[in-house]
Amino acid sequence: MQDLSVAILGASGYTGSELIRLLVNHPNVKISYITAEKHAGKKVSEVFPHLKGVLELKLDKLDSGKIPEDMDIVFAALPHGASAEVIQKLYERKIKIIDLGADFRLNEGNYRQWYGEHPCTDLLENAVYGISELKKEQIAETNLIANPGCYPTSSILPLAPLLKENIIDESSIIIDSKSGVSGAGRSPSLDLHYCEVSEGFKAYKIAEHRHAPEIEQHLSEYSDKDVNIIFTPHLIPVDRGILSTIYVKTNKQFDTSELLQKLKDFYKDCYFIRVYDEGEFPNTSYVRCSNFCDIGIKSIPEKSSAVIVSAIDNLVKGAAGQAIQNMNIMIDLPETTGLRLNPVYP
Amino acid sequence: MQDLSVAILGASGYTGSELIRLLVNHPNVKISYITAEKHAGKKVSEVFPHLKGVLELKLDKLDSGKIPEDMDIVFAALPHGASAEVIQKLYERKIKIIDLGADFRLNEGNYRQWYGEHPCTDLLENAVYGISELKKEQIAETNLIANPGCYPTSSILPLAPLLKENIIDESSIIIDSKSGVSGAGRSPSLDLHYCEVSEGFKAYKIAEHRHAPEIEQHLSEYSDKDVNIIFTPHLIPVDRGILSTIYVKTNKQFDTSELLQKLKDFYKDCYFIRVYDEGEFPNTSYVRCSNFCDIGIKSIPEKSSAVIVSAIDNLVKGAAGQAIQNMNIMIDLPETTGLRLNPVYP
Amino acid sequence: MQDLSVAILGASGYTGSELIRLLVNHPNVKISYITAEKHAGKKVSEVFPHLKGVLELKLDKLDSGKIPEDMDIVFAALPHGASAEVIQKLYERKIKIIDLGADFRLNEGNYRQWYGEHPCTDLLENAVYGISELKKEQIAETNLIANPGCYPTSSILPLAPLLKENIIDESSIIIDSKSGVSGAGRSPSLDLHYCEVSEGFKAYKIAEHRHAPEIEQHLSEYSDKDVNIIFTPHLIPVDRGILSTIYVKTNKQFDTSELLQKLKDFYKDCYFIRVYDEGEFPNTSYVRCSNFCDIGIKSIPEKSSAVIVSAIDNLVKGAAGQAIQNMNIMIDLPETTGLRLNPVYP
Amino acid sequence: MQDLSVAILGASGYTGSELIRLLVNHPNVKISYITAEKHAGKKVSEVFPHLKGVLELKLDKLDSGKIPEDMDIVFAALPHGASAEVIQKLYERKIKIIDLGADFRLNEGNYRQWYGEHPCTDLLENAVYGISELKKEQIAETNLIANPGCYPTSSILPLAPLLKENIIDESSIIIDSKSGVSGAGRSPSLDLHYCEVSEGFKAYKIAEHRHAPEIEQHLSEYSDKDVNIIFTPHLIPVDRGILSTIYVKTNKQFDTSELLQKLKDFYKDCYFIRVYDEGEFPNTSYVRCSNFCDIGIKSIPEKSSAVIVSAIDNLVKGAAGQAIQNMNIMIDLPETTGLRLNPVYP
Repeated sequence: MQDLSVAILGASGYTGSELIRLLVNHPNVKISYITAEKHAGKKVSEVFPHLKGVLELKLDKLDSGKIPEDMDIVFAALPHGASAEVIQKLYERKIKIIDLGADFRLNEGNYRQWYGEHPCTDLLENAVYGISELKKEQIAETNLIANPGCYPTSSILPLAPLLKENIIDESSIIIDSKSGVSGAGRSPSLDLHYCEVSEGFKAYKIAEHRHAPEIEQHLSEYSDKDVNIIFTPHLIPVDRGILSTIYVKTNKQFDTSELLQKLKDFYKDCYFIRVYDEGEFPNTSYVRCSNFCDIGIKSIPEKSSAVIVSAIDNLVKGAAGQAIQNMNIMIDLPETTGLRLNPVYP
Repeated sequence: MQDLSVAILGASGYTGSELIRLLVNHPNVKISYITAEKHAGKKVSEVFPHLKGVLELKLDKLDSGKIPEDMDIVFAALPHGASAEVIQKLYERKIKIIDLGADFRLNEGNYRQWYGEHPCTDLLENAVYGISELKKEQIAETNLIANPGCYPTSSILPLAPLLKENIIDESSIIIDSKSGVSGAGRSPSLDLHYCEVSEGFKAYKIAEHRHAPEIEQHLSEYSDKDVNIIFTPHLIPVDRGILSTIYVKTNKQFDTSELLQKLKDFYKDCYFIRVYDEGEFPNTSYVRCSNFCDIGIKSIPEKSSAVIVSAIDNLVKGAAGQAIQNMNIMIDLPETTGLRLNPVYP
Repeated sequence: MQDLSVAILGASGYTGSELIRLLVNHPNVKISYITAEKHAGKKVSEVFPHLKGVLELKLDKLDSGKIPEDMDIVFAALPHGASAEVIQKLYERKIKIIDLGADFRLNEGNYRQWYGEHPCTDLLENAVYGISELKKEQIAETNLIANPGCYPTSSILPLAPLLKENIIDESSIIIDSKSGVSGAGRSPSLDLHYCEVSEGFKAYKIAEHRHAPEIEQHLSEYSDKDVNIIFTPHLIPVDRGILSTIYVKTNKQFDTSELLQKLKDFYKDCYFIRVYDEGEFPNTSYVRCSNFCDIGIKSIPEKSSAVIVSAIDNLVKGAAGQAIQNMNIMIDLPETTGLRLNPVYP
Repeated sequence: MQDLSVAILGASGYTGSELIRLLVNHPNVKISYITAEKHAGKKVSEVFPHLKGVLELKLDKLDSGKIPEDMDIVFAALPHGASAEVIQKLYERKIKIIDLGADFRLNEGNYRQWYGEHPCTDLLENAVYGISELKKEQIAETNLIANPGCYPTSSILPLAPLLKENIIDESSIIIDSKSGVSGAGRSPSLDLHYCEVSEGFKAYKIAEHRHAPEIEQHLSEYSDKDVNIIFTPHLIPVDRGILSTIYVKTNKQFDTSELLQKLKDFYKDCYFIRVYDEGEFPNTSYVRCSNFCDIGIKSIPEKSSAVIVSAIDNLVKGAAGQAIQNMNIMIDLPETTGLRLNPVYP
């Protein structure tokens, strides 16, 4: 198979640079076109010195009319609202699109409530929410992927199987998530100043974060009733990684090993899901720079409760890695192609 | 008032060195005697170079018989089990004792279950659990303080008033706590190796941590029924700080401002408790190196739930600072004496 | 002595907030007036939540005419160029001024070369360079202090005595300095984004940093010939601290102990200078949050060379702490008043 | 070509796990045998949870007699002194050996002075010092590689070409190096406790580090006279990375661009050496997790001096990566095989 041509729209953020890092080593594609608003005209290595000698390509200004005709696949890592028009045109050209922004993740009602008027509702129903392990068939057949948010990925992967098998109560889920700083993007702000983050730890947007409706909407697919969560994100002073500590009520008393076995069975063919043994728990540093999602569970049967812990790298499984996994599925490659990234430790 | 003589037993850990840092500047006491097992014979500045020029005193080997006669107050920062015998002898000598270890924090039943046979049950009933703001009167009248654990301090301070006023349900409290590394002590171990901690984040001892029964036992004093919690501690890659995110069910629907007002009223005379306004939340870096406990709340009335966030410095309000606050109360000084430590930022 | 009234101009940066942290606890002064451009009208605790309950004062907009008449001492922590006009007016009013900016640190020629045209050359000759231990007498008699830069403080304190006693060669000094991030100020920029700093280490402005001429000019006072250095600053991913590793040629062969003794003798009455014993070296964490300057030396007699290592907290001895030390000297208090800040460890 | 069988002796340290991370993805080899003293009998994923699902192999106890017959290549990452006997036996069996320890890096005289009596002097002369870019031909022909230390790699690569072309003075080189913590190994000790390292910065073993004679001995090959350096290592609170700031005297006045061009010419065919343009300088985070060595220079012609800055990842180019690069050369593969690791950022 000849190399497919790939474009990355919005290549000057951390998601964009992570797409470059991974796609440069992918055996079946070639990065042919990249854009960035503020840095248009520069070489990518001027914006990201670590890519010196890795990719020598200039950043163009985003203009849907100028995206080269021969692109096979387009990754869009643009701010929400900025990608709709471009994506519509690309979609009409039958190009495969993976949107890493928020525009196609929510249904119209949720979108309006949390982001505002949706810029192209027509397309909304064609988009497949690309949580790779759970949507493989739909992903294989669509041309438009709404790539999941980082917090939702860390939450939906462990919870969907348990909801589907009616093991947990859909109305009392509490998700206490902790994210590294790269999840907040690369734009400078006082909140992201080194000294404001370092040696601190805080919660933010408690019960007000836009990833909460994303989690609820997509988890509801696996439940008879609407899923309703309490979601608290926190900021960890590290570059990468999300750890979600999830509190659930079980519908009857379960041993830890039973719950783990449910997940092991469900994900038995999924290379990227590592379900832990009893007594072991994930650490964000065990998945750093990899596409793994690690899951551990502690059941508290006397309280008909369980504590689930999941860990991902927010830039990989939570963004660029899962996007490439989705691309692999779309172009009929093994999903692990180019993604056997061993975790970096330490 | 002449300076009172103070001894610190176990001065080579982080709690010990924090006691030194603070007591050296206390206007009414003088550190006269310090011990450390491994480092006996050394000057404290050999063990802690930052104390060079601050305190020039030699560390002695702990031997209850050798503790000088003229000590007025003894702080014990020893491993659990190690302090009982010494404390008994000091207690008989009518010396005021503040034990920063775990030996006098739990009742006999709980102690046996979580630590083993208690070394001196007689004394147990004389010990006052020194959560300063809640026990001022008892602290003033005892000679033996069980200084609270760091996680319990961060949990009990925000929860006790809400339980006392019957605002929250005692059976569905979830405490998701995150602690800096100094809480694990100064003994080297693979788990505490810089590279194993840095850039990572993990949960540990889920529903198995010894601070859970401590929280339950002491919160139960403020409730008609036994308090029963789910407690998950996590390790943050920072030196200091505990942030506890606490999920509670409210007994009716409350606005955030109502809940905050309850705490503001309760703690209106307490310098060290800072209850935040609506929309503001604590950060461990806002309390670093200070004796403050900061508290913020977000109510979710439609779910009859609330999320409470508290922050303390684990070595100060969670250990040495609260110990000195207790000492101040015991010796009838204003509780803030020597403790107006402004937070260090950044 | 009644409390003296203090104003802080430019209180919304890290130097400003550190001045507040320290002056609030100073026994002889009271912060009466504070300004900040962007945040005028806000309470200081809105800009710095850690100061909630510590100082409840509103920030004013800087306007030299509006600085209250009854100020005794003014600290200016303003960007270079911004303070000259204000300081001139205050100077005429005979108010004691400590300028923490760069405007009065260099002679006219150096200033022009490195910063541009000097805004008020008249005043320049009245300013005393406030490196406290070396200029005590002049400081006591002036109304205008140019408070030294952080890198210069860490360099001049160990070198001046060795130059003065003609022990080292003035033409071959190499200063390899490493600073924590707070030295770069609080304004957001990509360079200071958490993820750009964390887990990295870099040199910057090699042989081009404005602190090089400051070091050269002021060291030259202690030498017959002009001092000429090579200066390389680096950024350490920590909040606070400067470590300078200084390479010098000695004028004859010296043992390490001889060199250390020279410094011990020179600084024997200086509480804030801690000269180490042979084989011991400073660590920025041994001086964190304190006004200490720690110095260690390793002589390499066979190469007629020595390696000197100094450590300070850039916000304390490198800025706010030394400024208060200078204030103490100016108002005839013991220089340690309000500055017996024990280092925070960890 | 069929996969070659590889053994790793000493696989439970950071160098060992980095070898695993990289070799698992190498297209021409297969890890068949691994040892570790303390952890013998365990699966590697029990010692390194990040390798769960990546390599399922048990650790054996090191016993030279038990190393399987069919090994083609052996990597030894053992403490110094521990590998000599084993390596001798493997060498006799004509197995290709890459020793990442210190035993074969120094000549006998230097070894005796810095480490003690050498355990097998016979073999010493057969070992090739594997600084890949400089020794390609010798590496291709030997069966025993002494893989360079991390500090020496960061120092020799920029300096050797400049010495060889007689551009710099061999007697006045000062190397001020800064290393991440993983360079100190994985054994717990107080010095490596998270809280002792975090938020600090220190120099250590000034002019006494064993890497100094290694640098001197191997740099002397490129100079007429013996090279004599002053070497100061420092500890950076990061996991990975070495930045060396090197001060040299030039034999005449050079512009920065001339010096850079010398290096660019010298390394023009070397993928892993990235020589920067004027005004740009390396950052350890630009090479993290990659095999690159980045080099920048600032000339100070008026002082006939230059400041050279180099950056490597100590675990990759400074250890496991260079070891694999050497293996590639030994088995006649392109040197980049399996090593096109794009730097991880952030």
